[in-house]
Amino acid sequence: MPDYFQDHMPGNICFGCGSMNPNGLQIKSYWEGDEGVCVWQPVPNYRGWENVTNGGILATIIDCHSMGTALAAAYRAEDRPMASDPIYRYATASISVRYLKPTPNDRPVTLRAKVIEVRGRKTRLSCQVSVDGQITAEAEVLGVRVIEGAPVEGSAFR
Amino acid sequence: MPDYFQDHMPGNICFGCGSMNPNGLQIKSYWEGDEGVCVWQPVPNYRGWENVTNGGILATIIDCHSMGTALAAAYRAEDRPMASDPIYRYATASISVRYLKPTPNDRPVTLRAKVIEVRGRKTRLSCQVSVDGQITAEAEVLGVRVIEGAPVEGSAFR
Repeated sequence: MPDYFQDHMPGNICFGCGSMNPNGLQIKSYWEGDEGVCVWQPVPNYRGWENVTNGGILATIIDCHSMGTALAAAYRAEDRPMASDPIYRYATASISVRYLKPTPNDRPVTLRAKVIEVRGRKTRLSCQVSVDGQITAEAEVLGVRVIEGAPVEGSAFR
Repeated sequence: MPDYFQDHMPGNICFGCGSMNPNGLQIKSYWEGDEGVCVWQPVPNYRGWENVTNGGILATIIDCHSMGTALAAAYRAEDRPMASDPIYRYATASISVRYLKPTPNDRPVTLRAKVIEVRGRKTRLSCQVSVDGQITAEAEVLGVRVIEGAPVEGSAFR
């Protein structure tokens, strides 16, 4: 089993990615090289139209997956385990999603996120949504780091 | 009671705006002058962090409310009742949201959407999210009309 980013977010009650939210989407993200990957199985409640996943729910998993990837990348760049001290957290500053075609809801959806720029506390990511290898949506997400605890000396993220 | 746009979307099972989805958000939108208005009461399940509504859920209600407003505007421009023949439907082509500050989840959230441009089948809207009069997020949404049935003669939306 991959080492999921969300297993290192203690107390997370987020609807999209909180392992402490029993009625949430509970997405799981992991590294594949320098890409954050998330595979999510749609359920009927989150349809937009018949057989199609709701675009806002796609935005939700894109957002959470991208912030998880930004967070994991921050720890990785400092070569320390996720949730080690000081704990980092990212908030979404902006998200843009282009819906290229309907995203079917009867098969797993795959998200691939990549850090495209880190500037101080800000991390910009791209994220692609695909089903069976077909890209159905493309997004860009900007996250801002919120520090908890004292910053590590020499961090690239100060 | 206002005349809600969503009461004229027969068979709508959408997570965000479908009156036929018993476990959905069931947002309701109505005209106030040339603005589509939606007031939504957050619930704990849709938090991002403690006391804050999840950004993806905000994107979901922005998306559905904006598409509802695009749809209502299309019927209004043709001076005919919603859901009259031919039935129109809008799909989201793109959405961009800027999160300006956390959106508290213990009070109603108000969305105000406005059509800023109609070009053929495409409608561009702006949408503001506020709580107690404070703007917490701003969005731009592009919808594309999907025609069902034959188009009306002389429609501005052909």
